[in-house]
Amino acid sequence: MYCQSCREEYGSEEAGTCKECYEEASETEEELHREIDHLKSLLCFLRLTPPPSPPPPHSGLLLLHSLADASASASPVPAHRAVLVSRSPVFKAMLDNEMEESRSGVIKIPDASTKVLRSFIDYLYTAETTLDEDIAPELLILAEKYQVNHLKVFCERYMTSKVNHENAIACYAFAHRHNAKQLLDAALSLIIENMATLREREEYKELVERDPRLVVELYEAYLCRQANLASTKDSNAKV
Amino acid sequence: MYCQSCREEYGSEEAGTCKECYEEASETEEELHREIDHLKSLLCFLRLTPPPSPPPPHSGLLLLHSLADASASASPVPAHRAVLVSRSPVFKAMLDNEMEESRSGVIKIPDASTKVLRSFIDYLYTAETTLDEDIAPELLILAEKYQVNHLKVFCERYMTSKVNHENAIACYAFAHRHNAKQLLDAALSLIIENMATLREREEYKELVERDPRLVVELYEAYLCRQANLASTKDSNAKV
Repeated sequence: MYCQSCREEYGSEEAGTCKECYEEASETEEELHREIDHLKSLLCFLRLTPPPSPPPPHSGLLLLHSLADASASASPVPAHRAVLVSRSPVFKAMLDNEMEESRSGVIKIPDASTKVLRSFIDYLYTAETTLDEDIAPELLILAEKYQVNHLKVFCERYMTSKVNHENAIACYAFAHRHNAKQLLDAALSLIIENMATLREREEYKELVERDPRLVVELYEAYLCRQANLASTKDSNAKV
Repeated sequence: MYCQSCREEYGSEEAGTCKECYEEASETEEELHREIDHLKSLLCFLRLTPPPSPPPPHSGLLLLHSLADASASASPVPAHRAVLVSRSPVFKAMLDNEMEESRSGVIKIPDASTKVLRSFIDYLYTAETTLDEDIAPELLILAEKYQVNHLKVFCERYMTSKVNHENAIACYAFAHRHNAKQLLDAALSLIIENMATLREREEYKELVERDPRLVVELYEAYLCRQANLASTKDSNAKV
Protein backbone atom coordinates (compact mmCIF):
# COMPACT_ATOMS: atom_id res chain seq x y z
CA MET A 1 0.00 0.00 0.00
CA TYR A 2 1.04 3.61 -0.50
CA CYS A 3 1.62 6.33 2.06
CA GLN A 4 -0.56 9.33 1.23
CA SER A 5 2.04 11.65 2.62
CA CYS A 6 5.40 10.58 1.12
CA ARG A 7 3.83 8.51 -1.71
CA GLU A 8 6.15 5.59 -1.05
CA GLU A 9 5.13 1.98 -0.67
CA TYR A 10 5.20 0.37 2.76
CA GLY A 11 4.40 -2.98 4.38
CA SER A 12 2.05 -3.75 7.26
CA GLU A 13 4.85 -3.54 9.81
CA GLU A 14 5.52 0.04 8.82
CA ALA A 15 1.84 1.06 9.02
CA GLY A 16 1.17 4.50 10.55
CA THR A 17 -2.47 5.60 10.27
CA CYS A 18 -5.63 4.74 8.42
CA LYS A 19 -6.89 7.12 5.74
CA GLU A 20 -9.51 8.71 8.00
CA CYS A 21 -7.04 9.63 10.71
CA TYR A 22 -4.59 10.91 8.11
CA GLU A 23 -7.21 13.25 6.70
CA GLU A 24 -8.26 14.42 10.14
CA ALA A 25 -4.66 15.16 11.05
CA SER A 26 -4.17 17.19 7.86
CA GLU A 27 -7.25 19.23 8.68
CA THR A 28 -5.98 19.85 12.22
CA GLU A 29 -2.67 21.03 10.84
CA GLU A 30 -4.39 23.45 8.49
CA GLU A 31 -6.48 24.77 11.37
CA LEU A 32 -3.37 25.27 13.50
CA HIS A 33 -1.70 27.17 10.67
CA ARG A 34 -4.77 29.39 10.37
CA GLU A 35 -4.68 30.07 14.11
CA ILE A 36 -0.99 30.97 13.88
CA ASP A 37 -1.70 33.43 11.07
CA HIS A 38 -4.51 34.94 13.11
CA LEU A 39 -2.33 35.34 16.22
CA LYS A 40 0.44 36.89 14.14
CA SER A 41 -1.94 39.48 12.74
CA LEU A 42 -3.12 40.33 16.28
CA LEU A 43 0.52 40.72 17.35
CA CYS A 44 1.27 42.95 14.43
CA PHE A 45 -1.72 45.10 15.38
CA LEU A 46 -0.74 45.38 19.06
CA ARG A 47 2.90 46.32 18.53
CA LEU A 48 3.62 49.98 19.21
CA THR A 49 6.33 52.09 17.63
CA PRO A 50 8.88 53.31 20.22
CA PRO A 51 9.11 57.12 20.24
CA PRO A 52 11.97 58.82 18.38
CA SER A 53 15.04 59.99 20.23
CA PRO A 54 15.24 62.88 21.00
CA PRO A 55 11.47 63.13 21.51
CA PRO A 56 9.45 66.09 20.18
CA PRO A 57 9.24 69.02 22.65
CA HIS A 58 6.31 69.08 25.11
CA SER A 59 5.50 65.46 24.31
CA GLY A 60 5.12 64.56 27.98
CA LEU A 61 7.31 61.50 27.43
CA LEU A 62 9.42 60.08 30.24
CA LEU A 63 13.17 60.01 29.76
CA LEU A 64 15.29 57.07 30.86
CA HIS A 65 18.87 58.08 31.64
CA SER A 66 21.68 55.56 31.76
CA LEU A 67 24.00 56.40 34.65
CA ALA A 68 26.47 53.79 33.39
CA ASP A 69 27.15 55.73 30.19
CA ALA A 70 29.79 58.36 30.76
CA SER A 71 29.96 59.29 27.08
CA ALA A 72 28.54 62.74 26.41
CA SER A 73 26.98 61.60 23.16
CA ALA A 74 24.61 59.17 24.87
CA SER A 75 21.11 60.65 24.82
CA PRO A 76 18.28 59.57 27.14
CA VAL A 77 15.76 57.03 25.86
CA PRO A 78 12.17 58.36 25.70
CA ALA A 79 9.16 56.22 26.61
CA HIS A 80 5.43 56.60 27.25
CA ARG A 81 4.29 56.37 30.84
CA ALA A 82 1.39 54.10 29.83
CA VAL A 83 3.73 51.55 28.26
CA LEU A 84 6.18 51.45 31.20
CA VAL A 85 3.34 51.14 33.70
CA SER A 86 1.60 48.34 31.83
CA ARG A 87 4.73 46.23 31.28
CA SER A 88 6.53 46.51 34.61
CA PRO A 89 5.08 46.41 38.15
CA VAL A 90 8.19 48.26 39.35
CA PHE A 91 7.64 51.20 36.99
CA LYS A 92 3.96 51.06 37.91
CA ALA A 93 4.70 51.49 41.61
CA MET A 94 7.25 54.20 40.85
CA LEU A 95 4.99 56.24 38.56
CA ASP A 96 1.61 55.72 40.20
CA ASN A 97 2.83 56.87 43.58
CA GLU A 98 4.02 60.35 42.69
CA MET A 99 7.61 59.51 43.46
CA GLU A 100 10.35 61.80 42.25
CA GLU A 101 10.48 60.09 38.85
CA SER A 102 6.81 60.77 38.29
CA ARG A 103 7.18 64.49 38.97
CA SER A 104 10.42 65.06 37.11
CA GLY A 105 9.68 62.76 34.17
CA VAL A 106 13.23 61.43 34.43
CA ILE A 107 14.07 57.85 35.43
CA LYS A 108 17.68 57.10 36.28
CA ILE A 109 18.84 53.58 35.43
CA PRO A 110 22.10 52.91 37.29
CA ASP A 111 23.59 49.78 35.77
CA ALA A 112 22.65 49.61 32.11
CA SER A 113 24.28 51.23 29.11
CA THR A 114 22.21 53.38 26.75
CA LYS A 115 22.40 50.63 24.15
CA VAL A 116 20.89 48.07 26.52
CA LEU A 117 18.31 50.59 27.68
CA ARG A 118 17.20 51.17 24.10
CA SER A 119 16.91 47.44 23.54
CA PHE A 120 14.87 47.20 26.76
CA ILE A 121 12.43 49.88 25.62
CA ASP A 122 12.18 48.29 22.16
CA TYR A 123 11.07 45.09 23.81
CA LEU A 124 8.48 46.83 25.97
CA TYR A 125 6.88 48.31 22.83
CA THR A 126 7.17 45.40 20.41
CA ALA A 127 7.87 42.18 22.36
CA GLU A 128 10.96 41.68 20.23
CA THR A 129 14.56 42.83 20.15
CA THR A 130 17.84 41.61 18.68
CA LEU A 131 20.07 39.82 21.15
CA ASP A 132 23.76 39.03 21.11
CA GLU A 133 26.03 37.49 23.70
CA ASP A 134 26.95 40.86 25.21
CA ILE A 135 23.49 42.33 25.39
CA ALA A 136 21.50 39.27 26.57
CA PRO A 137 22.91 39.06 30.14
CA GLU A 138 22.69 42.83 30.70
CA LEU A 139 19.12 42.84 29.43
CA LEU A 140 18.21 39.88 31.62
CA ILE A 141 19.45 41.80 34.67
CA LEU A 142 17.33 44.80 33.70
CA ALA A 143 14.30 42.59 33.07
CA GLU A 144 14.74 41.00 36.48
CA LYS A 145 15.11 44.33 38.25
CA TYR A 146 11.98 45.82 36.67
CA GLN A 147 10.09 42.51 36.82
CA VAL A 148 9.49 42.20 33.09
CA ASN A 149 9.22 38.46 33.29
CA HIS A 150 8.45 37.95 29.63
CA LEU A 151 11.73 39.59 28.61
CA LYS A 152 13.68 37.70 31.25
CA VAL A 153 12.47 34.38 29.80
CA PHE A 154 13.36 35.61 26.31
CA CYS A 155 16.96 36.45 27.36
CA GLU A 156 17.34 33.28 29.39
CA ARG A 157 16.24 31.14 26.45
CA TYR A 158 18.81 32.86 24.24
CA MET A 159 21.61 32.42 26.78
CA THR A 160 20.70 28.77 27.31
CA SER A 161 21.10 28.17 23.57
CA LYS A 162 24.63 29.60 23.79
CA VAL A 163 25.99 27.61 26.76
CA ASN A 164 29.13 25.63 25.89
CA HIS A 165 32.03 23.98 27.69
CA GLU A 166 33.96 27.27 27.65
CA ASN A 167 31.37 29.49 29.30
CA ALA A 168 29.51 26.89 31.42
CA ILE A 169 31.03 27.95 34.75
CA ALA A 170 30.39 31.66 34.12
CA CYS A 171 26.83 30.87 33.01
CA TYR A 172 26.30 28.72 36.10
CA ALA A 173 27.34 31.56 38.41
CA PHE A 174 25.29 34.11 36.46
CA ALA A 175 22.19 31.89 36.44
CA HIS A 176 22.51 31.36 40.17
CA ARG A 177 22.74 35.08 40.87
CA HIS A 178 19.69 35.89 38.75
CA ASN A 179 17.40 32.94 39.45
CA ALA A 180 17.53 31.60 35.92
CA LYS A 181 16.58 27.96 36.43
CA GLN A 182 16.66 26.84 32.79
CA LEU A 183 20.12 28.33 32.22
CA LEU A 184 21.36 26.90 35.51
CA ASP A 185 20.32 23.37 34.55
CA ALA A 186 21.90 23.62 31.11
CA ALA A 187 25.19 24.92 32.51
CA LEU A 188 25.21 22.34 35.31
CA SER A 189 24.72 19.46 32.86
CA LEU A 190 27.71 20.59 30.83
CA ILE A 191 29.88 21.07 33.90
CA ILE A 192 28.99 17.64 35.26
CA GLU A 193 29.95 16.01 31.97
CA ASN A 194 33.52 17.24 32.55
CA MET A 195 33.98 16.83 36.27
CA ALA A 196 37.38 15.17 35.77
CA THR A 197 39.00 18.32 34.35
CA LEU A 198 36.95 20.82 36.34
CA ARG A 199 39.49 21.57 39.03
CA GLU A 200 42.16 22.57 36.55
CA ARG A 201 40.11 25.35 34.98
CA GLU A 202 40.82 29.01 35.69
CA GLU A 203 37.13 29.97 36.03
CA TYR A 204 36.66 27.23 38.59
CA LYS A 205 39.51 28.55 40.72
CA GLU A 206 38.09 32.06 40.52
CA LEU A 207 34.66 30.83 41.53
CA VAL A 208 36.09 29.02 44.56
CA GLU A 209 37.70 32.33 45.58
CA ARG A 210 34.65 34.46 44.94
CA ASP A 211 31.73 32.27 45.92
CA PRO A 212 32.68 28.94 47.52
CA ARG A 213 29.09 28.19 48.47
CA LEU A 214 28.15 28.04 44.82
CA VAL A 215 30.89 25.50 44.24
CA VAL A 216 29.54 23.43 47.10
CA GLU A 217 26.10 23.44 45.49
CA LEU A 218 27.70 22.30 42.28
CA TYR A 219 29.23 19.27 43.96
CA GLU A 220 25.98 18.54 45.74
CA ALA A 221 24.11 18.59 42.44
CA TYR A 222 26.73 16.26 40.99
CA LEU A 223 26.40 13.75 43.83
CA CYS A 224 22.63 13.95 43.67
CA ARG A 225 22.63 13.06 39.97
CA GLN A 226 25.06 10.23 40.55
CA ALA A 227 22.79 8.81 43.26
CA ASN A 228 19.78 9.09 40.94
CA LEU A 229 21.64 7.34 38.16
CA ALA A 230 22.70 4.55 40.52
CA SER A 231 19.17 3.98 41.82
CA THR A 232 17.76 3.94 38.27
CA LYS A 233 20.33 1.34 37.26
CA ASP A 234 19.55 -0.60 40.40
CA SER A 235 15.81 -0.74 39.82
CA ASN A 236 16.35 -1.61 36.16
CA ALA A 237 18.56 -4.51 37.25
CA LYS A 238 15.83 -5.77 39.62
CA VAL A 239 13.20 -5.72 36.84
CA MET B 1 -2.62 -3.69 10.54
CA TYR B 2 -3.43 -1.14 13.23
CA CYS B 3 -3.77 2.62 12.98
CA GLN B 4 -1.42 4.28 15.47
CA SER B 5 -3.85 7.12 15.91
CA CYS B 6 -7.31 5.55 16.46
CA ARG B 7 -5.95 2.07 17.32
CA GLU B 8 -8.41 0.37 15.00
CA GLU B 9 -7.62 -2.24 12.39
CA TYR B 10 -7.67 -1.28 8.72
CA GLY B 11 -7.09 -2.90 5.34
CA SER B 12 -4.69 -1.85 2.59
CA GLU B 13 -7.40 0.13 0.80
CA GLU B 14 -7.86 2.33 3.84
CA ALA B 15 -4.14 3.01 4.24
CA GLY B 16 -3.21 6.56 5.26
CA THR B 17 0.45 7.00 6.08
CA CYS B 18 3.51 4.96 6.87
CA LYS B 19 4.89 5.03 10.42
CA GLU B 20 7.64 7.50 9.61
CA CYS B 21 5.29 10.10 8.15
CA TYR B 22 2.87 9.59 11.04
CA GLU B 23 5.60 10.34 13.54
CA GLU B 24 6.79 13.35 11.61
CA ALA B 25 3.26 14.72 11.47
CA SER B 26 2.83 14.30 15.22
CA GLU B 27 6.04 16.21 15.81
CA THR B 28 4.90 18.99 13.49
CA GLU B 29 1.63 19.26 15.37
CA GLU B 30 3.46 19.55 18.67
CA GLU B 31 5.70 22.25 17.23
CA LEU B 32 2.69 24.18 15.98
CA HIS B 33 1.08 23.98 19.40
CA ARG B 34 4.28 25.30 20.95
CA GLU B 35 4.32 28.18 18.48
CA ILE B 36 0.69 28.97 19.32
CA ASP B 37 1.50 29.06 23.05
CA HIS B 38 4.45 31.33 22.35
CA LEU B 39 2.39 33.74 20.23
CA LYS B 40 -0.34 33.82 22.88
CA SER B 41 2.17 34.78 25.55
CA LEU B 42 3.49 37.59 23.32
CA LEU B 43 -0.07 38.82 22.80
CA CYS B 44 -0.74 38.75 26.50
CA PHE B 45 2.41 40.81 27.06
CA LEU B 46 1.55 43.40 24.39
CA ARG B 47 -2.03 44.05 25.47
CA LEU B 48 -2.45 47.39 27.26
CA THR B 49 -5.04 48.21 29.89
CA PRO B 50 -7.43 50.95 28.71
CA PRO B 51 -7.39 53.96 31.11
CA PRO B 52 -10.17 54.29 33.70
CA SER B 53 -13.12 56.56 33.07
CA PRO B 54 -13.11 59.29 34.31
CA PRO B 55 -9.32 59.55 33.96
CA PRO B 56 -7.13 60.88 36.80
CA PRO B 57 -6.67 64.69 36.69
CA HIS B 58 -3.70 66.10 34.72
CA SER B 59 -3.14 62.73 33.07
CA GLY B 60 -2.76 64.31 29.64
CA LEU B 61 -5.17 61.74 28.18
CA LEU B 62 -7.32 62.54 25.18
CA LEU B 63 -11.08 62.42 25.64
CA LEU B 64 -13.40 60.97 23.01
CA HIS B 65 -16.88 62.49 23.15
CA SER B 66 -19.85 60.79 21.55
CA LEU B 67 -22.07 63.41 19.92
CA ALA B 68 -24.74 60.74 19.34
CA ASP B 69 -25.34 60.30 23.07
CA ALA B 70 -27.79 62.87 24.34
CA SER B 71 -27.93 61.31 27.82
CA ALA B 72 -26.30 63.49 30.46
CA SER B 73 -24.85 60.45 32.23
CA ALA B 74 -22.63 59.46 29.27
CA SER B 75 -19.04 60.33 30.12
CA PRO B 76 -16.25 60.77 27.55
CA VAL B 77 -13.92 57.83 26.88
CA PRO B 78 -10.26 58.52 27.73
CA ALA B 79 -7.39 57.24 25.57
CA HIS B 80 -3.65 57.69 25.20
CA ARG B 81 -2.44 59.68 22.24
CA ALA B 82 0.26 57.08 21.50
CA VAL B 83 -2.29 54.29 21.19
CA LEU B 84 -4.68 56.21 18.92
CA VAL B 85 -1.83 57.35 16.69
CA SER B 86 -0.34 53.89 16.35
CA ARG B 87 -3.62 52.12 15.54
CA SER B 88 -5.35 54.56 13.17
CA PRO B 89 -3.85 56.60 10.33
CA VAL B 90 -6.80 58.99 10.65
CA PHE B 91 -6.08 59.75 14.29
CA LYS B 92 -2.41 59.98 13.39
CA ALA B 93 -3.05 62.68 10.80
CA MET B 94 -5.41 64.48 13.17
CA LEU B 95 -3.05 64.48 16.15
CA ASP B 96 0.31 64.89 14.44
CA ASN B 97 -0.81 67.98 12.57
CA GLU B 98 -1.73 70.21 15.49
CA MET B 99 -5.36 70.30 14.47
CA GLU B 100 -7.97 71.50 16.95
CA GLU B 101 -8.27 68.01 18.52
CA SER B 102 -4.56 67.97 19.27
CA ARG B 103 -4.65 71.31 21.10
CA SER B 104 -7.88 70.79 23.00
CA GLY B 105 -7.34 67.11 23.84
CA VAL B 106 -10.97 66.46 22.88
CA ILE B 107 -12.04 64.37 19.89
CA LYS B 108 -15.68 64.56 18.88
CA ILE B 109 -17.12 61.37 17.37
CA PRO B 110 -20.37 62.21 15.60
CA ASP B 111 -22.14 58.93 14.89
CA ALA B 112 -21.25 56.44 17.59
CA SER B 113 -22.80 55.91 21.01
CA THR B 114 -20.60 55.98 24.11
CA LYS B 115 -21.04 52.20 24.43
CA VAL B 116 -19.68 51.62 20.93
CA LEU B 117 -16.90 54.13 21.52
CA ARG B 118 -15.82 52.27 24.63
CA SER B 119 -15.80 49.01 22.72
CA PHE B 120 -13.72 50.70 19.99
CA ILE B 121 -11.12 51.91 22.49
CA ASP B 122 -11.05 48.49 24.17
CA TYR B 123 -10.13 46.96 20.83
CA LEU B 124 -7.39 49.51 20.18
CA TYR B 125 -5.75 48.58 23.49
CA THR B 126 -6.27 44.81 23.57
CA ALA B 127 -7.17 43.58 20.04
CA GLU B 128 -10.32 42.07 21.49
CA THR B 129 -13.83 43.17 22.41
CA THR B 130 -17.20 41.51 22.92
CA LEU B 131 -19.52 41.82 19.94
CA ASP B 132 -23.27 41.41 19.61
CA GLU B 133 -25.61 41.97 16.69
CA ASP B 134 -26.26 45.59 17.65
CA ILE B 135 -22.71 46.64 18.31
CA ALA B 136 -20.93 44.87 15.41
CA PRO B 137 -22.30 47.01 12.53
CA GLU B 138 -21.79 50.27 14.45
CA LEU B 139 -18.25 49.28 15.33
CA LEU B 140 -17.53 48.28 11.74
CA ILE B 141 -18.57 51.76 10.62
CA LEU B 142 -16.26 53.36 13.18
CA ALA B 143 -13.41 51.05 12.17
CA GLU B 144 -13.92 51.97 8.54
CA LYS B 145 -14.01 55.69 9.26
CA TYR B 146 -10.81 55.65 11.33
CA GLN B 147 -9.15 53.06 9.07
CA VAL B 148 -8.62 50.45 11.76
CA ASN B 149 -8.64 47.64 9.25
CA HIS B 150 -7.95 44.91 11.75
CA LEU B 151 -11.10 45.75 13.69
CA LYS B 152 -13.16 46.06 10.51
CA VAL B 153 -12.21 42.50 9.52
CA PHE B 154 -13.07 41.33 13.06
CA CYS B 155 -16.58 42.87 12.89
CA GLU B 156 -17.15 41.70 9.33
CA ARG B 157 -16.25 38.12 10.25
CA TYR B 158 -18.72 38.24 13.14
CA MET B 159 -21.51 39.67 10.99
CA THR B 160 -20.85 37.09 8.26
CA SER B 161 -21.34 34.32 10.82
CA LYS B 162 -24.76 35.79 11.67
CA VAL B 163 -26.22 36.19 8.17
CA ASN B 164 -29.50 34.29 7.72
CA HIS B 165 -32.51 34.32 5.39
CA GLU B 166 -34.20 36.97 7.53
CA ASN B 167 -31.42 39.56 7.54
CA ALA B 168 -29.72 38.75 4.23
CA ILE B 169 -31.11 41.73 2.32
CA ALA B 170 -30.24 44.19 5.10
CA CYS B 171 -26.76 42.68 5.35
CA TYR B 172 -26.33 42.90 1.59
CA ALA B 173 -27.16 46.61 1.59
CA PHE B 174 -24.94 47.26 4.62
CA ALA B 175 -22.02 45.34 3.14
CA HIS B 176 -22.34 47.26 -0.09
CA ARG B 177 -22.29 50.61 1.70
CA HIS B 178 -19.23 49.73 3.75
CA ASN B 179 -17.13 47.73 1.28
CA ALA B 180 -17.39 44.49 3.21
CA LYS B 181 -16.71 41.92 0.50
CA GLN B 182 -16.89 38.77 2.63
CA LEU B 183 -20.24 39.79 4.15
CA LEU B 184 -21.54 40.80 0.73
CA ASP B 185 -20.77 37.41 -0.76
CA ALA B 186 -22.36 35.53 2.13
CA ALA B 187 -25.53 37.62 1.96
CA LEU B 188 -25.71 37.37 -1.81
CA SER B 189 -25.44 33.58 -1.71
CA LEU B 190 -28.38 33.35 0.67
CA ILE B 191 -30.48 35.79 -1.35
CA ILE B 192 -29.80 33.92 -4.58
CA GLU B 193 -30.92 30.66 -2.98
CA ASN B 194 -34.39 32.19 -2.54
CA MET B 195 -34.83 34.21 -5.70
CA ALA B 196 -38.37 32.80 -6.21
CA THR B 197 -39.76 34.44 -3.08
CA LEU B 198 -37.52 37.53 -3.13
CA ARG B 199 -39.96 39.94 -4.68
CA GLU B 200 -42.60 39.33 -2.03
CA ARG B 201 -40.38 40.39 0.85
CA GLU B 202 -40.83 43.74 2.60
CA GLU B 203 -37.07 44.48 2.81
CA TYR B 204 -36.76 43.90 -0.92
CA LYS B 205 -39.50 46.43 -1.68
CA GLU B 206 -37.83 48.94 0.63
CA LEU B 207 -34.49 48.43 -1.03
CA VAL B 208 -36.02 48.97 -4.50
CA GLU B 209 -37.38 52.28 -3.20
CA ARG B 210 -34.20 53.37 -1.45
CA ASP B 211 -31.43 52.09 -3.69
CA PRO B 212 -32.59 50.54 -6.98
CA ARG B 213 -29.04 50.36 -8.31
CA LEU B 214 -28.15 47.91 -5.58
CA VAL B 215 -31.07 45.73 -6.62
CA VAL B 216 -29.83 45.81 -10.21
CA GLU B 217 -26.42 44.63 -9.05
CA LEU B 218 -28.13 41.83 -7.18
CA TYR B 219 -29.85 40.63 -10.36
CA GLU B 220 -26.63 40.96 -12.31
CA ALA B 221 -24.80 38.82 -9.78
CA TYR B 222 -27.61 36.26 -9.99
CA LEU B 223 -27.41 36.06 -13.81
CA CYS B 224 -23.64 35.88 -13.68
CA ARG B 225 -23.75 32.89 -11.34
CA GLN B 226 -26.37 31.18 -13.48
CA ALA B 227 -24.18 31.62 -16.58
CA ASN B 228 -21.18 30.23 -14.68
CA LEU B 229 -23.18 27.23 -13.52
CA ALA B 230 -24.41 26.57 -17.07
CA SER B 231 -20.92 26.74 -18.56
CA THR B 232 -19.55 24.43 -15.85
CA LYS B 233 -22.31 21.92 -16.61
CA ASP B 234 -21.64 22.30 -20.31
CA SER B 235 -17.91 21.62 -20.06
CA ASN B 236 -18.56 18.67 -17.74
CA ALA B 237 -20.96 17.24 -20.31
CA LYS B 238 -18.32 17.59 -23.06
CA VAL B 239 -15.74 15.75 -20.95
